Amino acid sequence: MTAEYRQFYRGRRVMITGGLGFIGSNLARQLVEAGADVLLVDSLIPDYGGNLFNIDGIADRLRVNVADVRQQTTMNYLVRDRDVIFNLAGQVSHIDSMRDPYTDLEINCRSQLTILEACRYNNPKTKLVFAGTRQVYGRPESLPVTEVHLVRPTDVNGINKAAGEYYHLLYNNVFGVRACSLRLTNVYGPRQLIKHSRQGFIAWFIRLAIENKPIQIYGDGSQLRDFVYVDDVADAFLRAGASDACNGEVFNVGGDRAISHRELVGILLGITGAGSVEYVDWPPDKKAIDIGSFYADSSKFKGATGWRAAVPLADGLRCTVDFYRRHLNRYIGEEERTEPM
Amino acid sequence: MTAEYRQFYRGRRVMITGGLGFIGSNLARQLVEAGADVLLVDSLIPDYGGNLFNIDGIADRLRVNVADVRQQTTMNYLVRDRDVIFNLAGQVSHIDSMRDPYTDLEINCRSQLTILEACRYNNPKTKLVFAGTRQVYGRPESLPVTEVHLVRPTDVNGINKAAGEYYHLLYNNVFGVRACSLRLTNVYGPRQLIKHSRQGFIAWFIRLAIENKPIQIYGDGSQLRDFVYVDDVADAFLRAGASDACNGEVFNVGGDRAISHRELVGILLGITGAGSVEYVDWPPDKKAIDIGSFYADSSKFKGATGWRAAVPLADGLRCTVDFYRRHLNRYIGEEERTEPM
Repeated sequence: MTAEYRQFYRGRRVMITGGLGFIGSNLARQLVEAGADVLLVDSLIPDYGGNLFNIDGIADRLRVNVADVRQQTTMNYLVRDRDVIFNLAGQVSHIDSMRDPYTDLEINCRSQLTILEACRYNNPKTKLVFAGTRQVYGRPESLPVTEVHLVRPTDVNGINKAAGEYYHLLYNNVFGVRACSLRLTNVYGPRQLIKHSRQGFIAWFIRLAIENKPIQIYGDGSQLRDFVYVDDVADAFLRAGASDACNGEVFNVGGDRAISHRELVGILLGITGAGSVEYVDWPPDKKAIDIGSFYADSSKFKGATGWRAAVPLADGLRCTVDFYRRHLNRYIGEEERTEPM
Repeated sequence: MTAEYRQFYRGRRVMITGGLGFIGSNLARQLVEAGADVLLVDSLIPDYGGNLFNIDGIADRLRVNVADVRQQTTMNYLVRDRDVIFNLAGQVSHIDSMRDPYTDLEINCRSQLTILEACRYNNPKTKLVFAGTRQVYGRPESLPVTEVHLVRPTDVNGINKAAGEYYHLLYNNVFGVRACSLRLTNVYGPRQLIKHSRQGFIAWFIRLAIENKPIQIYGDGSQLRDFVYVDDVADAFLRAGASDACNGEVFNVGGDRAISHRELVGILLGITGAGSVEYVDWPPDKKAIDIGSFYADSSKFKGATGWRAAVPLADGLRCTVDFYRRHLNRYIGEEERTEPM
């Protein structure tokens, strides 16, 4: 029997910004499955993660609108009949944000105002679920991190994502545009960008292992993270979008246990039967914004919605490796395929 | 004998953004007195608080450069030889920020990146002191509010000021551009804009009292605030600018005690011997972003620098009333002087 929060989406008009990206496209699969009327909005900016292959097999059951969320008049139009908006568009590289803070500001901060103003004036009855990030906490003072931990980001990306999140809560509280934020930890799974290494190390590690190359771990690899499979994250978005108890709140959404980089790579190499590991010194630009160990306590969200991270890490990694092995050429440009596999 | 932190400024090249505004111009007076080489940068945007009369009497002892802090190339040039930068430029109206969030974003958030990037590439050895605000805390969970209270702003202005503050800490921590932030509570004193009511109620109350008009208090006037005289705030900026112990930190800077709106107006009317009070219902737009009672604990800053709020409220109000009585025509446009005085 289909769960109630999934039945909620039958015939429901939803929109996903960043819908051709990693999390957006996996969420789209579940929404299509639930019978929703799905509109994906994506700018397809090169290197940002949008990929038409991500909707392979479901492309005829949804609509794609190529647009930039920074474009006010376009957003005014697109939001107007949407019941739920999953707001996932963004620039996710911490390193890029330090090199070019203005672009990060435009995409992660100003664009949220564009979407929220569009809703305020054109569809105030909609519901927004924002893709927040653990990055807003910065270097944690205590572990596991709960939502009462201070927001103290250590990079420009984290600051702009924090502002974008605050805007959502504000529009919920002041203008009655219902909104909440899921602060995602380390999400992994099929359909993540692996063309370059600037969108999270886990996808990059998977690519290196598949290509039988050495994986570099900075320092001794003892720092901890929690990892959450993308299907579990998509499920979290569905639950938050269907629950008015979530309005005006922020929630951690992370994996069930903390594991070290060293252990993660061990599990990964065991699955791939390829690749190797190499311990190297921290590059200075990455060390400057590193946050040490981090893992989140997601019990607030579990309590509010009944969600849990259902997919064990080894299973999730196995599915991910399998996916990329089958579709590597859809995620790595031809120009990059000259290296030995 | 001059205090050490004041001697620090003798011959020191300093810059004040928003230098023709309320706090900036009062700070400029103390810096000129301390023998600093003072450069004021101000955009003189109408209605934002910049006023050339604010430097009456010291204009020949400093330099004024009319410029907008959003202009990157201009800022690149202006910061290059400044030892200390007091970064006070901003849009301060909470209500305006809700009507036009984009302008507030540009002025309070993006402009901070402009200044910090200018320093990063052209003068990384400078020291910045940012004018933060109690508004970043939003509606307080407990009183008095310390710096460990969650940042949870209730209006767009507060969000953008929070982001601007985070940028300063980030540039301190990552790029070594020394910076700290003073989270100011309710500052009052001479040279504040009183042409309209959107820059803080206290200056507006003073104007109404002087003009012998009724002062409207929303609700029953029981909500508490702490008030700090502008000379004490200027002193706080001097201390922070001279202290490397402040780098990378945020500090509350507020008045010594919490008093109600009702009591404040009572004291004010006693001083002016004019004006009256009127209790009215909250306007909905103001109620929506109201934060209830607020007063700050400034002991972290006191401990770090030895600062204290030296001017008692009644004395500060008396000086302020006296100032505006003498110079009212410099702060209220001719078009507004047609009403009975």
